[in-house]
Amino acid sequence: MMPTLKEIVEKPDTVHGRAFDIAIQILIVLSLISFSIETLPHLPPRMRHWLHYVEIFTVGIFTIEYLLRLIIADRKSSFVFSFYGLVDLIAILPFFVWPGVDLRSFRAFRLLRLFRILKLVRYNRAVRLFHRALLIAREEVILFLAVAAILLYLASVGIYYFEHEAQPEKFASVFHGMWWAVATLTTVGYGDIYPITVGGRIFTFLVLIIGLGVVAVPAGLVASALSRARELEKDGEPVLDAAK
Amino acid sequence: MMPTLKEIVEKPDTVHGRAFDIAIQILIVLSLISFSIETLPHLPPRMRHWLHYVEIFTVGIFTIEYLLRLIIADRKSSFVFSFYGLVDLIAILPFFVWPGVDLRSFRAFRLLRLFRILKLVRYNRAVRLFHRALLIAREEVILFLAVAAILLYLASVGIYYFEHEAQPEKFASVFHGMWWAVATLTTVGYGDIYPITVGGRIFTFLVLIIGLGVVAVPAGLVASALSRARELEKDGEPVLDAAK
Amino acid sequence: MMPTLKEIVEKPDTVHGRAFDIAIQILIVLSLISFSIETLPHLPPRMRHWLHYVEIFTVGIFTIEYLLRLIIADRKSSFVFSFYGLVDLIAILPFFVWPGVDLRSFRAFRLLRLFRILKLVRYNRAVRLFHRALLIAREEVILFLAVAAILLYLASVGIYYFEHEAQPEKFASVFHGMWWAVATLTTVGYGDIYPITVGGRIFTFLVLIIGLGVVAVPAGLVASALSRARELEKDGEPVLDAAK
Amino acid sequence: MMPTLKEIVEKPDTVHGRAFDIAIQILIVLSLISFSIETLPHLPPRMRHWLHYVEIFTVGIFTIEYLLRLIIADRKSSFVFSFYGLVDLIAILPFFVWPGVDLRSFRAFRLLRLFRILKLVRYNRAVRLFHRALLIAREEVILFLAVAAILLYLASVGIYYFEHEAQPEKFASVFHGMWWAVATLTTVGYGDIYPITVGGRIFTFLVLIIGLGVVAVPAGLVASALSRARELEKDGEPVLDAAK
Repeated sequence: MMPTLKEIVEKPDTVHGRAFDIAIQILIVLSLISFSIETLPHLPPRMRHWLHYVEIFTVGIFTIEYLLRLIIADRKSSFVFSFYGLVDLIAILPFFVWPGVDLRSFRAFRLLRLFRILKLVRYNRAVRLFHRALLIAREEVILFLAVAAILLYLASVGIYYFEHEAQPEKFASVFHGMWWAVATLTTVGYGDIYPITVGGRIFTFLVLIIGLGVVAVPAGLVASALSRARELEKDGEPVLDAAK
Repeated sequence: MMPTLKEIVEKPDTVHGRAFDIAIQILIVLSLISFSIETLPHLPPRMRHWLHYVEIFTVGIFTIEYLLRLIIADRKSSFVFSFYGLVDLIAILPFFVWPGVDLRSFRAFRLLRLFRILKLVRYNRAVRLFHRALLIAREEVILFLAVAAILLYLASVGIYYFEHEAQPEKFASVFHGMWWAVATLTTVGYGDIYPITVGGRIFTFLVLIIGLGVVAVPAGLVASALSRARELEKDGEPVLDAAK
Repeated sequence: MMPTLKEIVEKPDTVHGRAFDIAIQILIVLSLISFSIETLPHLPPRMRHWLHYVEIFTVGIFTIEYLLRLIIADRKSSFVFSFYGLVDLIAILPFFVWPGVDLRSFRAFRLLRLFRILKLVRYNRAVRLFHRALLIAREEVILFLAVAAILLYLASVGIYYFEHEAQPEKFASVFHGMWWAVATLTTVGYGDIYPITVGGRIFTFLVLIIGLGVVAVPAGLVASALSRARELEKDGEPVLDAAK
Repeated sequence: MMPTLKEIVEKPDTVHGRAFDIAIQILIVLSLISFSIETLPHLPPRMRHWLHYVEIFTVGIFTIEYLLRLIIADRKSSFVFSFYGLVDLIAILPFFVWPGVDLRSFRAFRLLRLFRILKLVRYNRAVRLFHRALLIAREEVILFLAVAAILLYLASVGIYYFEHEAQPEKFASVFHGMWWAVATLTTVGYGDIYPITVGGRIFTFLVLIIGLGVVAVPAGLVASALSRARELEKDGEPVLDAAK
């Protein structure tokens, strides 16, 4: 039995549909790699040519794909204004509107399509589990984000007062202090900005002790919520009741 | 039915009370942003003018709010000396006492008020859960902090002995070693101070292996305590019995 | 009763077999240390001599061990093409094929043998537990890796757009942005490359908030999965059913 | 009723014993602070004098304490060669043997005494819980440490091959690579040594993905083990059976 066009394009759980989906996703990745390579400085002109062909080819296929989805859709307007419909359009539009301009980075949105492949097999379960866990831990996560934001602001103001006089260039304002607080509380520590006064260093120490405690919390929350989500899953409770 | 003044100012769980609360909180954030901008160097005079108006406006509103709360309070003295009463006073006092001096950073204390909005809806539950978890994990957390403090001191003394001779400027004293230990054990690693001798590097390795183990513990403790707190919550046990 | 050769070489759970295994493992570690020392610059010629003797000695023993295993094996070909058979061969082959060339680093593969000793005693249980946990958390881990890869790519493209103009040397291409994204999202933060524009710094902040959430997930997953694996272990369920 | 000397010195769970214990611990901390200050460069001579007096005073008290414990001990030799007996002796010996030499850092060992105070009240429970958790997770932790050691070595050798040619000074040997691996896998990232070749950076990326997974495991193990230890605690099972 020949597969219908609808089956190929819209049903990623059939054999032909899955093949179509994977082919499109490979093209997306190819297009992203080509886009990344194009940003490299000192590219030989020949390479640029090849990348341009890849660009024309991928956009061509994406345009055909978009038209196919549009033709097949039962209600045209609901497809055009659906989330994936808009994503698909944004991914090809720049090529036709500003042919010379390099706006292919919009195609990054198409990466969202990669989630489709995850939907196949049994990944519905993993996504559902995360959804449940999020519902369970929602309140704690919001509370935690609020505490983190307040801590970040207080750290920024504090370090500004401690370091502004000693390093007027680096800690020029509270916003500079905020950049320091982001790099420090996430423990990235680039080393472009750090306290040199005794007061600033003791302050850093105190901020880090509290800050690491705050950072350690989400891991615990996620573990706890996922563990509970799994139990509820086993008991067969519907998702909406999970937060009760 | 017209809402009474008392309802608006003191009852954040009514419609008008909540609107009042949110308005005050938006003003707090506005005031903090204005304060942060003012620390920026090379501000055009016109900008300074605008920021000064924002300052006068917000302090004006906060003063009215303070007086309203004072008028409404059943027992004046207990409001004035309550935690939030003092916070509210500290947030406006500097403006009247030292009009020229820039002490608006005191307003950071008002951020504590942001917790009020969290209290609304169902956030009581999240706070109660954290409270329970803290009660459950209290002993372990104190033990952990004691171990961390001892480890930090031993690391400071150790690195001082290993690196003092090779880098007499950077590792000038045990306190300099302590700054290194803070930046290293929290894995921030600014890169302003690090061992260069073989002994110091092997010592760093050993300290980090033990130190990361110590840092990994609180996440586990929080996860375990929160998970247990949730169970107790479900069983309806009162908070005070949680630690038994 | 004299132990047979087969017992000594192939049965690490007997007294003689274990002694043989430990001896070989000590030689592996010795060989690796010797290899590492040889990479040190400015080695005195005498030291080089000694290291060469160690090399000849260890390769000699490893060759004898390989021949012993080959002789003892019931089916020669299945030993030669088995995983450990190939590892053993690769560890000695370079010495005979390119005597002058220093390819002893291949011996690192022999480290895989160290797992054998772990298998003794009761370590079967720990490995089985990890195996179970992996089966349980497989879907979530794959989903997580896909999300991490997408986040990494988007961060690379984003920082390239924000910083390319300000730092054309450091953020020369999307691939340079990817190196930054790796160092930042893992919180290593070497400090060789970091944003200096306001937009780039705010972008870094947002990427880190999402990124640390993504990094905090696997710890939770592993904890949850290990905890469940242990329960299943206790109930005596076979490993293959664990993921159901 | 007058407390006996034995009660004061050896029974930290009585009122007088606890007061004695706390006094000694305050002296230990005082002695450590004084020792740290003495390492500061450019100290005024007067300060040095004061620190010397603090030194004589604290060593004097520690000597009296040691003699008291010796006198009170039922079996002298078993006290002298006990763990705390040796620690107490090491803490005062240097002062008498090398009066001029500054060996007060030995007193850091006395920090171990701080654990005594933790034993009071109900901390026995926290320590017992950790003990149980360690017994439960022992096998997994050993397996994890072995995997971490192998990963560290392979990362060191790998980065040496990738970066040695490009940075012969920084990646001079496998041991230099090991220092890089320590700073990178713990995510400290001082920034004194990092890959600059494309191969080295891709290798760093792969090592970090695997390495962070390995680092995320202990947190999960501790959480899982502590959670189980608590359950066993509640059921009243003896510690020795916990690992079964």
